[in-house]
Amino acid sequence: MVILQSMSEETVNSDVIVDSTVTSASDVNTISTDNIVFIGNKPTMNYVLAIVTQFQNGQSEVIVRGRGKAISRAVDAVEVALHKFLPRIEKQQITTCTEEVETEDGMMRVSVIEIVLAHQNQESSE
Amino acid sequence: MVILQSMSEETVNSDVIVDSTVTSASDVNTISTDNIVFIGNKPTMNYVLAIVTQFQNGQSEVIVRGRGKAISRAVDAVEVALHKFLPRIEKQQITTCTEEVETEDGMMRVSVIEIVLAHQNQESSE
Repeated sequence: MVILQSMSEETVNSDVIVDSTVTSASDVNTISTDNIVFIGNKPTMNYVLAIVTQFQNGQSEVIVRGRGKAISRAVDAVEVALHKFLPRIEKQQITTCTEEVETEDGMMRVSVIEIVLAHQNQESSE
Repeated sequence: MVILQSMSEETVNSDVIVDSTVTSASDVNTISTDNIVFIGNKPTMNYVLAIVTQFQNGQSEVIVRGRGKAISRAVDAVEVALHKFLPRIEKQQITTCTEEVETEDGMMRVSVIEIVLAHQNQESSE
């Protein structure tokens, strides 16, 4: 809960989150932004597939990230992925924040959601 | 985090959440679904106002609830309310789940987000 709080306060830096998944030196080479699924304007099932593929490729943690109107799609993609394809994966953390984005009309604020998915075993074995 | 987990698993019953705000016998009369802000298709600022009004009326906890495409608006309303009007309120818990809704075409699944807002002091004084 403390982590959720501190992350909600400020704009979340994606790199920081990726760093938190580094658990051993041997993992470093495989850690990149690969485990982040950015939600855009494509059909929800595209992102469901992206999430499922991440776990099938051996990722232990996948971060689903959506901005603005794509927030709804991010939640949809996670719900479908977990209910239909990934019964052993759970939502470990959900955070929202506000980011400033540069547009033609100047800086605009946009809401962001990040949902961290991971194996259920990780949490219960601690 | 345990609470977040158990709530994410199943469809969240709003009544249960409201019950959790009952802290003393004298509070019972004032506890109702009043502290839930349901997000619909109106402009975001309507819901921002609804959230701010809840706290101004003395609510210690407000639950913001959105379904389907209104999920994005729910997050927007919370972000704007907290950044612009309620600096001492924080997101205490964010959960998502899937609900079944009866439509003309039969049962349809829809994603739901619930964001619990409360005074920062509550958490830190524990």
